[in-house]
Amino acid sequence: MTIEIASTAKSFGGWHKQVQHESKTLQCTMRFAVYMPPKAVSGEPVPVLYWLSGLTCTDENFMQKAGAHRMAAELGIAIVAPDTSPRGDDVPDDPDGAYDFGHGAGFYVNATQSPWSRHYRMYDYVVHELPEIVEAEFPVTSTRAISGHSMGGHGALMIALRNPDRFTSVSAFAPIVNPIDVPWGQKAFSNYLGDDAEAWKAYDSCVLMAKAEQFVPALVDQGDADGFLNEQLQPETLRAVAEERSYPLELRMQEGYDHSYYFISSFIEDHLRFHSRYLGA
Amino acid sequence: MTIEIASTAKSFGGWHKQVQHESKTLQCTMRFAVYMPPKAVSGEPVPVLYWLSGLTCTDENFMQKAGAHRMAAELGIAIVAPDTSPRGDDVPDDPDGAYDFGHGAGFYVNATQSPWSRHYRMYDYVVHELPEIVEAEFPVTSTRAISGHSMGGHGALMIALRNPDRFTSVSAFAPIVNPIDVPWGQKAFSNYLGDDAEAWKAYDSCVLMAKAEQFVPALVDQGDADGFLNEQLQPETLRAVAEERSYPLELRMQEGYDHSYYFISSFIEDHLRFHSRYLGA
Repeated sequence: MTIEIASTAKSFGGWHKQVQHESKTLQCTMRFAVYMPPKAVSGEPVPVLYWLSGLTCTDENFMQKAGAHRMAAELGIAIVAPDTSPRGDDVPDDPDGAYDFGHGAGFYVNATQSPWSRHYRMYDYVVHELPEIVEAEFPVTSTRAISGHSMGGHGALMIALRNPDRFTSVSAFAPIVNPIDVPWGQKAFSNYLGDDAEAWKAYDSCVLMAKAEQFVPALVDQGDADGFLNEQLQPETLRAVAEERSYPLELRMQEGYDHSYYFISSFIEDHLRFHSRYLGA
Repeated sequence: MTIEIASTAKSFGGWHKQVQHESKTLQCTMRFAVYMPPKAVSGEPVPVLYWLSGLTCTDENFMQKAGAHRMAAELGIAIVAPDTSPRGDDVPDDPDGAYDFGHGAGFYVNATQSPWSRHYRMYDYVVHELPEIVEAEFPVTSTRAISGHSMGGHGALMIALRNPDRFTSVSAFAPIVNPIDVPWGQKAFSNYLGDDAEAWKAYDSCVLMAKAEQFVPALVDQGDADGFLNEQLQPETLRAVAEERSYPLELRMQEGYDHSYYFISSFIEDHLRFHSRYLGA
């Protein structure tokens, strides 16, 4: 594999880079972002937190707006943030240019339907190809945690639930927990996965948690002033499953917070400290 | 005066708002951003740090990317970030759409030349109109500090040097310290202020510091990997004046840092702690 460094900036004694590569999984050029803490820069491999962003985001939003580098530097954790979908003129997009499907809205699934199935394979990209590249090219260990926001919170929870051996811990901000039952998920899944709703269940965190055999410690923050809370997010559905299964989920309702990066930045320190306990960082 | 709240988000226990108003100084609709720490939200007035952004920025860049809310919340300091120029279809812009003049590039001066002089009066806006509105509408004291980045670092230093009674302390990241002698400043000043370079000196921090009679404690950070360092910024010119005058300037060269918000976020905590010593926060 060949990677190209598209940008580099020093940050909190470590560095932030944007990395470009030809993805064999997604069949297009992809860009992801990496933050490497001072500990790794000085030669000691560190564990990695994968961050999955929400609708409309790229690799940039979290790195620029979450204020996460400070604690990642202090705790000795690398952060990797992929894009949210395949990209490029050759990658089909929502015909109406909607923000919640197509480019910027890969939903972290492997599409099975035409014309999406050639490129839209974000599940395989995040679970396999991306860690392979990161672990081959940068001074990191193969110890991994995963986190995300909104659509990316869905991705983080779903991927951790399906891959408990690959991730030590999972967290999310305002995640879509039950996509098969809410409009964002139903639109995306019916297009990417087809009309048979049975096939959607492989990507639904509530369904997956109900039958999980191996537990991954989970932390979820949800603002109670989030405009998407009642229609799209509904974290209480996940809480009910976790209680039923005695799944180690801490779900915190945060009074007055909305869906924005101001919410994420207010609590990202808690999430990094949570993951560091399991990453052994 | 009438203000309109364009957005509100909770952040670190306080709130961030975008405020719109008709500026009598600039003769157009302006938007600025305010961060109010928990202390102020609970009813105790706090001092204010004014932040002036650099070329191409709006009220949003600093608030979203600097990671400043955390320390402002902890120290009990409000932050106010104005836009970088007058805006709107009626406000003349650089005829070639250049990034370094016109919209997004007010340079914090009062223009004297046609067609700029009607709207481009950012000096009076930042020194007078903006604090008047902020102090009338929000739970703040009239104790003020000022900081900024690049063109905004020029604005902060120049405004503090001209108004030592209005600001307790000043800081800057990668400021233009000697605009009369570098391309960005010469282009802006010749257009806004005319060809007589004598008139430019009233807005040049090196000139102002050389004749300052009242000192304002100053902190400047400059990355040594900043691509604009040698042609546009040249902080050593200011250091020489400060040494000559025994002006209380701490200028720190930061190894490996560039001109971006990753640089600012890495050191914003130091700047907020510096200002809090003088603000009595």
